[in-house]
Amino acid sequence: MNYNQIFDQAIDRLHSEGRYRVFIDILRNKGQYPNARCFHGHNGPKPITVWCSNDYLAMGQHPKVIEAMEEALHDVGAGSGGTRNIGGNTHYHVELERELAELHGKQAALLFTSGYVSNDATLSTIAKLLPGCVIFSDELNHASMIAGIRNSGCEKRVFRHNDLDHLEQLLAAEDPETPKLIAFESVYSMDGDVAPIHAICDLAEKYNALTYIDEVHAVGMYGKTGGGISQRDDAADRIDIIEGTLGKAFGVMGGYIAADQKIVDCIRSYAPGFIFTTSLSPALVAGVLAAVKHLKSSSEERDAQQHNAAMLKAKLGDAGLPVMASETHIVPLMVGDPVRAKKISDILLAEYGAYVQPINYPTVPRGTERLRFTPGPAHTEEMMDELAEALVEIWDRLDLELRKAA
Amino acid sequence: MNYNQIFDQAIDRLHSEGRYRVFIDILRNKGQYPNARCFHGHNGPKPITVWCSNDYLAMGQHPKVIEAMEEALHDVGAGSGGTRNIGGNTHYHVELERELAELHGKQAALLFTSGYVSNDATLSTIAKLLPGCVIFSDELNHASMIAGIRNSGCEKRVFRHNDLDHLEQLLAAEDPETPKLIAFESVYSMDGDVAPIHAICDLAEKYNALTYIDEVHAVGMYGKTGGGISQRDDAADRIDIIEGTLGKAFGVMGGYIAADQKIVDCIRSYAPGFIFTTSLSPALVAGVLAAVKHLKSSSEERDAQQHNAAMLKAKLGDAGLPVMASETHIVPLMVGDPVRAKKISDILLAEYGAYVQPINYPTVPRGTERLRFTPGPAHTEEMMDELAEALVEIWDRLDLELRKAA
Repeated sequence: MNYNQIFDQAIDRLHSEGRYRVFIDILRNKGQYPNARCFHGHNGPKPITVWCSNDYLAMGQHPKVIEAMEEALHDVGAGSGGTRNIGGNTHYHVELERELAELHGKQAALLFTSGYVSNDATLSTIAKLLPGCVIFSDELNHASMIAGIRNSGCEKRVFRHNDLDHLEQLLAAEDPETPKLIAFESVYSMDGDVAPIHAICDLAEKYNALTYIDEVHAVGMYGKTGGGISQRDDAADRIDIIEGTLGKAFGVMGGYIAADQKIVDCIRSYAPGFIFTTSLSPALVAGVLAAVKHLKSSSEERDAQQHNAAMLKAKLGDAGLPVMASETHIVPLMVGDPVRAKKISDILLAEYGAYVQPINYPTVPRGTERLRFTPGPAHTEEMMDELAEALVEIWDRLDLELRKAA
Repeated sequence: MNYNQIFDQAIDRLHSEGRYRVFIDILRNKGQYPNARCFHGHNGPKPITVWCSNDYLAMGQHPKVIEAMEEALHDVGAGSGGTRNIGGNTHYHVELERELAELHGKQAALLFTSGYVSNDATLSTIAKLLPGCVIFSDELNHASMIAGIRNSGCEKRVFRHNDLDHLEQLLAAEDPETPKLIAFESVYSMDGDVAPIHAICDLAEKYNALTYIDEVHAVGMYGKTGGGISQRDDAADRIDIIEGTLGKAFGVMGGYIAADQKIVDCIRSYAPGFIFTTSLSPALVAGVLAAVKHLKSSSEERDAQQHNAAMLKAKLGDAGLPVMASETHIVPLMVGDPVRAKKISDILLAEYGAYVQPINYPTVPRGTERLRFTPGPAHTEEMMDELAEALVEIWDRLDLELRKAA
């Protein structure tokens, strides 16, 4: 039994498939986002433009957020010092949970250390509480949802992406008395498409299933006060559990669920991933509170993001580049091969100072490797023109095909 | 199928067993720890003394830590904006991993969003990479290790707590060619006892097993530069994977592993719990960097903690209170019943302004419910005398038995 050999082989597999990941070492410049410094290579920090951040609205740079975090740091210190139950339940946590519950029109909310953990802990725990539960999962659900479903030990039925007929077929095949949970996302982050929430809720009602929606790529960005697609579509009250993140549009870090008091109380009381972990640093929580409150009353950032996403899609499409259909702020460009995707990304960074990470398996299915751009409110038209020109030059250099310009 | 009824029953079970958890809502006073404000009850924030924090050395309040976090906040902003692979790999992350690898004398280190996630992600991933792996797990291992082991899908053999004979018996029963991993903790946080690291490593060598140690209750606090019990006992080079936390003695939030480069590279490349989550906020990472560096060169905090823990143990023991045997900084007081443990804790908080959380199942086995005190460098002798007197009064009030004073 040679352990080293096995570890070497595991790494070799990634190299040979062209999907060994190299992390690009950067520091953003607060107040000047999307500008950043890149420490990659040997030429010291050089200026770059970030095109792939999930700090979608640049709230991680917002003066109100920074100020709130600074204040909390000076008031109570760095870490919480314990689990929520043992010394780590600060007044900030209590306040933010109240704020998030209100944002989604729910009775209660519960914070987790990340969106990943909120999906994993909640899905695995709720399904375990329901004897014989069957989970219906969209085939494109995020890895953290898949982890939670697998860790629940329940039966899983995977329905084709956003396919209502297939979902209904699977629901109808189960005993009416079997507990059922439908788990899906609102915005699918690698394609940028949106779930038919009302239609899924219709099926849930018809077959008496609970509903669980992941809104991590939507909260803060959709709906009148940033409550996500379920708010925009007036469907939040039809969803049993809404899950969101504090690390994307809210600009900081952490995750949460919002639901009825009794569901939240069950997860709070039974989920090991919630119980046995140091709670979020109070400074983070204070920053999120400021971000949520700001985005509740300001639509400026949301509007600018939508405007810029539409402009970038148009510019890339006009240049003949293979922009994928996307109804949202996400702008994916199909490449279809991991080696080429990495190559394009490398050239963009090294020669054009444009940072966009290649997206490979297991984040997307093999053969659908892509670049994924997330323009924010501060990306300018000039930046977009430069990016489109650079991409056209690289496409040409690598003998890739351009579509006939529209 | 009535979902609400099932959720209600789940909550009722907790109430009827006397282990429904009520989170005490507090804010610590930076610079004056262990003093804090309590928002529990209706009499507005009132001053309390915290006795149950895992910010063991009060590094979460240290001026160097606060300053480093503030600087990072102003340099790069609040959140990292992405996973380590997609935009969230900052220069701070790279530096801290280098620092932690050095702390443990390892080639590399890897950051996670929490200690819970580092255990869950690493154990489940490494075991999956080793075909047919069998994991040998101490019966008192933390919930996060148990989660990782279960989520690996591997065969598990549980050995009696710190019982070398039992461990050897289980190791010897397996095929020599079977991949094996021994997972244990250095300091067991609820009892305060310590693992015989060298003896476990002897067995690992004899039976060709990998070793995984959880040092979350030891890093920063033991060893010449805070490298934990494995450093104190000069055993770090015999351990394959050392896991630690950034949220206890280092005062902030997050977790990590340190190991050979190839092991770290495998976890980095294959663990969903590492890959698919927003990386730690750069401000947190900057704070931890300052804490680790400080505790590398200063032993003042470690010495004061040990001194105060010994003093509190002596004072409680002298008063005839049932202090449990503990070789470390942890001071557990056995109660043996969840309702009484909560009652004592409630009286301490309401009448004496002393905050210590009752520890109930599932954190400890049923029938061993306890109070767990963690005196730090700043707890004074006067505070300890007051605490001991309060406990004696409450013991008397509740008709609990005191041992004959030593």
